Amino acid sequence: MVAKSPEVAAASEVAPVPFVVFQPLGRRVPVSAAGGSLLDLARAAGVDMQGTCGGKGLCGKCRVRLDGPSPAPPTETERKILGAAVAEGYRLACQTSLPQGGSVWVPPQSRPGGQVILTAGTDAGLGFDPAVEAIDLTVPPPSLEDVIADGQRLVGELGQGRQLAEVELPLGVLRQMPTALKAQAGRATAVLWQGRRVLDVAAGHGQPCLGLAVDLGTTTVVAYLVDLATGRHLAVASAVNPQIAHGEDVISRIAHAGLGAAQLEALRARACQCVNQLARAACRQAGASPGRIMECTLVGNTAMHHIFLGLDPAGLATAPYAPAVSSCLDLPAREAGLELALAANLHVLPVKAGFVGADTVAVALAVQAGSLDEPTLILDLGTNGEMILAAAGVMLCCSTAAGPAFEGGHITWGMRGAPGAVEGVRIGPDLEPVLKVIGGGPPLGLCGSGIISAVAGLVQAGALESNGSFAPSLASSRLRPGPRGVEFVLAWAPETGTGQDLVISAQDVSEVQLAKAAVHAGLRIMLDRLNLTRVSRVLLAGAFGNYLEPLDACAIGLLPGVRADMVEGVGNAAGAGAVAALLNRLRRIQAQELASRLRYLELAACPEFPDRFVEGMSFPAPSHSAPEPARDISGS
Amino acid sequence: MVAKSPEVAAASEVAPVPFVVFQPLGRRVPVSAAGGSLLDLARAAGVDMQGTCGGKGLCGKCRVRLDGPSPAPPTETERKILGAAVAEGYRLACQTSLPQGGSVWVPPQSRPGGQVILTAGTDAGLGFDPAVEAIDLTVPPPSLEDVIADGQRLVGELGQGRQLAEVELPLGVLRQMPTALKAQAGRATAVLWQGRRVLDVAAGHGQPCLGLAVDLGTTTVVAYLVDLATGRHLAVASAVNPQIAHGEDVISRIAHAGLGAAQLEALRARACQCVNQLARAACRQAGASPGRIMECTLVGNTAMHHIFLGLDPAGLATAPYAPAVSSCLDLPAREAGLELALAANLHVLPVKAGFVGADTVAVALAVQAGSLDEPTLILDLGTNGEMILAAAGVMLCCSTAAGPAFEGGHITWGMRGAPGAVEGVRIGPDLEPVLKVIGGGPPLGLCGSGIISAVAGLVQAGALESNGSFAPSLASSRLRPGPRGVEFVLAWAPETGTGQDLVISAQDVSEVQLAKAAVHAGLRIMLDRLNLTRVSRVLLAGAFGNYLEPLDACAIGLLPGVRADMVEGVGNAAGAGAVAALLNRLRRIQAQELASRLRYLELAACPEFPDRFVEGMSFPAPSHSAPEPARDISGS
Repeated sequence: MVAKSPEVAAASEVAPVPFVVFQPLGRRVPVSAAGGSLLDLARAAGVDMQGTCGGKGLCGKCRVRLDGPSPAPPTETERKILGAAVAEGYRLACQTSLPQGGSVWVPPQSRPGGQVILTAGTDAGLGFDPAVEAIDLTVPPPSLEDVIADGQRLVGELGQGRQLAEVELPLGVLRQMPTALKAQAGRATAVLWQGRRVLDVAAGHGQPCLGLAVDLGTTTVVAYLVDLATGRHLAVASAVNPQIAHGEDVISRIAHAGLGAAQLEALRARACQCVNQLARAACRQAGASPGRIMECTLVGNTAMHHIFLGLDPAGLATAPYAPAVSSCLDLPAREAGLELALAANLHVLPVKAGFVGADTVAVALAVQAGSLDEPTLILDLGTNGEMILAAAGVMLCCSTAAGPAFEGGHITWGMRGAPGAVEGVRIGPDLEPVLKVIGGGPPLGLCGSGIISAVAGLVQAGALESNGSFAPSLASSRLRPGPRGVEFVLAWAPETGTGQDLVISAQDVSEVQLAKAAVHAGLRIMLDRLNLTRVSRVLLAGAFGNYLEPLDACAIGLLPGVRADMVEGVGNAAGAGAVAALLNRLRRIQAQELASRLRYLELAACPEFPDRFVEGMSFPAPSHSAPEPARDISGS
Repeated sequence: MVAKSPEVAAASEVAPVPFVVFQPLGRRVPVSAAGGSLLDLARAAGVDMQGTCGGKGLCGKCRVRLDGPSPAPPTETERKILGAAVAEGYRLACQTSLPQGGSVWVPPQSRPGGQVILTAGTDAGLGFDPAVEAIDLTVPPPSLEDVIADGQRLVGELGQGRQLAEVELPLGVLRQMPTALKAQAGRATAVLWQGRRVLDVAAGHGQPCLGLAVDLGTTTVVAYLVDLATGRHLAVASAVNPQIAHGEDVISRIAHAGLGAAQLEALRARACQCVNQLARAACRQAGASPGRIMECTLVGNTAMHHIFLGLDPAGLATAPYAPAVSSCLDLPAREAGLELALAANLHVLPVKAGFVGADTVAVALAVQAGSLDEPTLILDLGTNGEMILAAAGVMLCCSTAAGPAFEGGHITWGMRGAPGAVEGVRIGPDLEPVLKVIGGGPPLGLCGSGIISAVAGLVQAGALESNGSFAPSLASSRLRPGPRGVEFVLAWAPETGTGQDLVISAQDVSEVQLAKAAVHAGLRIMLDRLNLTRVSRVLLAGAFGNYLEPLDACAIGLLPGVRADMVEGVGNAAGAGAVAALLNRLRRIQAQELASRLRYLELAACPEFPDRFVEGMSFPAPSHSAPEPARDISGS
């Protein structure tokens, strides 16, 4: 049975269900999912929050910041406890509700200290220690008796109280410096990178010092804007990767880049322009200027990483799939085409292998994979499924060519997770489906979670046999022959937004089988290599991870030996890793260490892969109790 | 009397006098100045050369390389002593002559070891230790069992036998690396800068590794191309600074740059394009590619330095004349617009003050000013006269706004030192002049040395009184009233290339007086500050220094207390300093130390300046013996 019953039941109605999104984790939860307060909702969404008074507004530990206007004024209790912070939009989660939905920022101090998962802005382990520092200076003017160059006078002021034997002044900074120093009689804000390079000199004290963390996905690009003076989250912006015009998956992008230098450059420029647009959009939200962004951290899979940097990705597509460079990189952001502060630094997180990129390293960083003791699978599902199996400090990783089915590709009615996409399906014993549609309107197609949910529903209803064929004995007007084999009608033409029947075909089921078999095989092989029989916990990363229903994943047998209650969504962990590296430079060292410690397993070179893959094709028998009972992987 | 009698006497004849130029000192000497061999000519030109056999071709120490074709085949003696070097153009200076003139390279081993003056390619003190190193590598290909990124494999190979904890791989190098490694199965030449940054990776072993040293003068830009694998001089190219369209002197350039950012950028681009053209021209001469130039060192006065870097020079024109930056700079050459190797480094030597630039620091480096014991004046005469007074390790420096007279500016018939310019004048007791013209044709005007020579001739002939007026008692048809005061006809219209009388006017004499007074005052004040009464030696740097006749300089009283035999031309010492910094990175540290140790004297702030200036206006009494007798400065 499908768990999200309240909203799934309401799915075919017209009114959209309001959601509350908890940042920085990116978890969204329907307003109707739990009791009225934001604290209740946060707990329903699995967002851990401080709080010791039982929601009475006494301890003040559940403070959150509303990202939009408040529907009601703060209570007397909130004013008393929060003081001036109320003016900045802070409220107590236990005292506030958002009946119309909205976005809520959970600050670091409201999150439990012992939490393992790092997320944007939350770095309880290491605190706030960015690579850049803004310093207010007053540089005395030169005189005929003391004719010292502007640059030397500036460095002299920076040097007070610190060891600055050698400070680098990039040409762009040198060019702006004399004017900046003159404008306010030497009062200026200098931005220093790693204590050794001046990134900016601006007239006046207290000039903003911002940072951008970018998760460059094959499909989606997300940029997080933070204040590097305070660590405060300012804005987030996302867009579809415009490279998508040249192929939906990394292999087709690599193939396109391989057509010639002009094609590689065009792909690079598209990604770069997209990041620049997101930087501008995030700055608009925050009332800031991209020219004040002093550092950018960037993660992405190895193909996106290479193309963004203008590195020929051809080597990634042919054995031995070696990247051009794997270590982290610091380079002038301008060299990569980014339009930030003139001398801004770009920190690119390390990649592990051709198909285990900086995004996976960032996920490992965000969930602190190196410190996980009990056997844990970290799964970043998308066109490629990157998997890390961590246990007692050992980390094995692999990439499965899961194929595009998980993102709606190669599916008769597949589409991306946009309004009109079916994202959840419940199929009753009478084979009548109930659909949950993004945005609440009539369905247009199926996104990744919708396809899995549909297949899970058919398996649970007994309509699909373990080999993936539709059960021949079933009699239902919804089952019929079609151009792609037998098909099941999820919605009749009058109910859809396309005017045609929305179906899932035997071929679609087969695509799901291939995708799940790859993931299944990857996990089985990694477990074998670590002499483990099962995992205790699954962390599901990525946007898809947020929407995939654990019960559905278990119903199709995606992960051998895993029960739904072991599965935890961790939001856009790659983005959270990028933010963590932005907020604390020690996280960069940690990322480099993680990239070294990750042991890469090339599944294509594993002799047992074909057997494990075939084994993973079959669906489990329907389970009629929830949660699904524990099964040994040997029986999967 | 004018000393260069042989060629001055021949000056009004039509046939051009052939010259031999000795590189890297840049000294030129007419073929007819001495006996026939290059060794004789070198000695006549003051070029010190090894040689212990008295020119008999026995010791083999006077080897030189001809930069052009040889007029006669090498002798049997030369073949025996030089062996294979003959094929590279090496000859023994004592056995070879160049009756048609030409250019000769004097290699380090042919120059006396104890010589103080560094010149291009000659660095007996510190030897050859450039900042870049070309390394032949064979990088093993990756395999499925050993999937290491190209960058890591490269650094791994570089790391053999050296400490390479952190090696920087600029984006441009990363982009070219995979292709370069693939082309010859991993055989490649990597270029490493300061042991910590990879500047280039090219397919194949033994790829060239070149360096460029640039002297960016207000009027002339010179570029020296050297082989950074061997230290060998390859080519030299020079051009008029194309910024000259926007003003002849630094003040007018600064004023033009001050009109707006577009004007500054236009000036910057012109200088940059000029250096790019010279790099291409020098490479053409050497059969090399500018893309193999891995490092460029650059010197220039502070205004040229600022404009080349795109730094607003406005501060240089107003008190306290503070530069934007004074320390040496290392930056990507591409950032400054140079079209060399993609990741080539640009090393800009330090400046001292607004009017004591990197060129002066380079001169101090080339003559090793910090090690001079006896009081020595180092004079780089041009539009500005930069002066260093060095004595027992103390170095005082100043800049005199000598004005353009020394470069032919503000003079009725002034012109630059090009063919047709009068560069030497001898005036007999009958007031009849003999002119020496560059190129030997009819005279078109007067260049700097010609003006000084003409004034010196008039002083020596008693035609000019000590206050600069033409002697009223003289009766000569060559003296007549003119639009700029009394004028003296150096050549009648039928003898000139312009069809007009070539004259020197009272106003021209006055310009020379102003220029010499500034230099005179600067030297006097510096001597006073160091409690000295006179210098023992004068080193005359710059192209002008090469052509200025010491006797003429003394005849006009340019340098108080200086006899002609104390004066030594040191060629383009600024260029030699730039080359020294290119060939040995310790020279860069030395340059930085010199810039710190130089004590800058702002003449405008010296209360005694006006008195010393007026004192310097007067001409000394004519001397009728050569060399001129020593005089105490108190009597000057």
